[in-house]
Amino acid sequence: MKLSHRITHLNGGGSDGWDVFYRARRMIAEGQAVTELTIGEHDIRTHPSILAEMDRSARAGHTGYAMVPGTDLLRDTVAARVQTRTGVPTTRHNVLITPGGQAALYAAHMAACDPGDVGLYLDPFYATYPGTIRGAGAVARAVQTRAEDAFQPDAAMITEQAEGAASLLINTPNNPTGVVYSRETLTEIADLCRERNLWLISDEVYDTQIWDGAHLSPRALPGMADRTLVVGSMSKSHAMTGSRCGWIVGPEEAIEHLINLATHTTYGVPGFIQDAASYALTAGDELEEEVATPFRRRRALAMQVLARQNTVGLIPAQGAMYLMLDIRATGQSGEDFANALLDTHAIAVMPGESFGQAAAGHVRVAMTIDDDRFAAALQTLCEFAARLASQTAAE
Amino acid sequence: MKLSHRITHLNGGGSDGWDVFYRARRMIAEGQAVTELTIGEHDIRTHPSILAEMDRSARAGHTGYAMVPGTDLLRDTVAARVQTRTGVPTTRHNVLITPGGQAALYAAHMAACDPGDVGLYLDPFYATYPGTIRGAGAVARAVQTRAEDAFQPDAAMITEQAEGAASLLINTPNNPTGVVYSRETLTEIADLCRERNLWLISDEVYDTQIWDGAHLSPRALPGMADRTLVVGSMSKSHAMTGSRCGWIVGPEEAIEHLINLATHTTYGVPGFIQDAASYALTAGDELEEEVATPFRRRRALAMQVLARQNTVGLIPAQGAMYLMLDIRATGQSGEDFANALLDTHAIAVMPGESFGQAAAGHVRVAMTIDDDRFAAALQTLCEFAARLASQTAAE
Repeated sequence: MKLSHRITHLNGGGSDGWDVFYRARRMIAEGQAVTELTIGEHDIRTHPSILAEMDRSARAGHTGYAMVPGTDLLRDTVAARVQTRTGVPTTRHNVLITPGGQAALYAAHMAACDPGDVGLYLDPFYATYPGTIRGAGAVARAVQTRAEDAFQPDAAMITEQAEGAASLLINTPNNPTGVVYSRETLTEIADLCRERNLWLISDEVYDTQIWDGAHLSPRALPGMADRTLVVGSMSKSHAMTGSRCGWIVGPEEAIEHLINLATHTTYGVPGFIQDAASYALTAGDELEEEVATPFRRRRALAMQVLARQNTVGLIPAQGAMYLMLDIRATGQSGEDFANALLDTHAIAVMPGESFGQAAAGHVRVAMTIDDDRFAAALQTLCEFAARLASQTAAE
Repeated sequence: MKLSHRITHLNGGGSDGWDVFYRARRMIAEGQAVTELTIGEHDIRTHPSILAEMDRSARAGHTGYAMVPGTDLLRDTVAARVQTRTGVPTTRHNVLITPGGQAALYAAHMAACDPGDVGLYLDPFYATYPGTIRGAGAVARAVQTRAEDAFQPDAAMITEQAEGAASLLINTPNNPTGVVYSRETLTEIADLCRERNLWLISDEVYDTQIWDGAHLSPRALPGMADRTLVVGSMSKSHAMTGSRCGWIVGPEEAIEHLINLATHTTYGVPGFIQDAASYALTAGDELEEEVATPFRRRRALAMQVLARQNTVGLIPAQGAMYLMLDIRATGQSGEDFANALLDTHAIAVMPGESFGQAAAGHVRVAMTIDDDRFAAALQTLCEFAARLASQTAAE
């Protein structure tokens, strides 16, 4: 029975570098000890105080349909948080609560793009981006960033690709690179969005994980509040990945229509989860610090390990829970290197190629295991790279 | 800033008869005592034993990303339940867990229809149906059913409208009519789906609420397992509306692509909610009976009240939590009658016109308040209708 062309063509063609990920999964399932550095998920669980609030809310009877736009409490809480952090006036009418950040990414593209419009995104990219744009019926078009620019986007390169585009999707702090976009980068992006009349879809789910510099939400730049849809989530900031609670912040008119879309696609988010999120967002900074601190600590450990060698390069690790390592000195592709590292040392990292073309010759390391094992694995990775590099030099 | 045509045109034009619903909401917000018979939601909450399992699962650490297709446990549980109830061989590979039944309806249309394809649905209809089809980029085309047929669909009328169609959406037991489709009706529908090569999207979320006759899933009819996408949910069967946990059951190939779509649109359902659902589905019949019994009881009360008069007609109330009342003897439209009933007696019911054109001159009564108030309100409604009818006769 024929399925729609759209659903059967969500993925682009070609090898996508995820073989090593699935191979590591199989090795683990078979009982092998694999050091798993592929996954963007905390090694802690949701804080018990958040779960206690969820249970309290459910037992108090908040188990019926919640309002589709989100509860007033959570919409107000998110609005106040965004206004405090960005300075942009924000009310509940600027906020739609979604079942996770991925649903927000999808809905934002549904609002910005009609079928056949181009949705721009930047390479390297989080795995779901092109399929999300295609799922919304738009044409997914990648714009390359360059390792030599530390993967800061170049506005001129985006403009070159902007013909027919309705939206540009960016992500800062960035997965997979760990880069935080500079004010200069974001100002140039904002300028081009105004010039080319683009929606800016700004994925800011890592905005509480900044190790160097400061997070700037492009919605706060002049003239951008009317054309920016910010995607946020409880997942990364509060280790609530499994709760599927996110949001879109944007212009009131866009939010009105997005609420209508939500009525027809998801019909709201569990009220008890929203109550837990409202609690978590107002419980004070300690909860967020407890989630972010392990990554900050491991990033410092990584800098120490990497400083002791000169084979593996580090893309400036300014935010998020990842390191992007340049292994081009080994003469290998990211995919070959990751496969060899898995075979030789049972350490699993993601090939840069799994995030597009721009990060070829790199691997992404998630800082999501305990400090000692993390530092030891990184040390092993560096020694392995050095051996490969010396072999390459000898050839 | 321009929003997509699709998102700004989800709703059809014209008055949709929901004014009375929102007016009742405002009266309640202003502190007036309104007897509220508009809402398809239980007057009980999710059972404490289900919430206890949810809390246990969360505290045990099931707070990270769950598998996108659903947990193995819930997929297996749903598959076994469907197989037992329908006799159709079903495994986890036929099941995708979704964040609620609405998300399942939307995803099913995304799988069945490409942009420009026609998605057929039957009038009267649950409010979100046409917008769901439009949201998937398809053309929403209604096929009328008739009060004189007790709103059983007529296959010939569907065939007349089937040009360009990729799918047909049906719902039995039916909201808003309370009708359960007969084997004859479903056999004819299955025949036309095979003849016209249509996907059948079968919304069966009320399948545990049968007061008269038996539920037949059309997936069980010859040759239909390959072309039927069944939408199910925990909402109505277990009073878990707010937990947003549903599913699609369909052919393996469709489910594979739907999992990929889910990766790009929702990224799974909370694991602790899925564990609660798995518990609820295997905890025995008592939990389901406790949810269904109040409606069964109130339906019996309603039959008694209605038997004592002959102004208001009752469409055969065979299932689901609604009664569809024929008030054409009053000479009024459903909308006028509902507005007058709200003004005169502060009783809120849904005009048939809010569910399309086919149920004009009817009102839908939700059986979702306690028995005494429900019976009294229905008595008042009948007396009110009788007065209107005698005035009409005297004019």
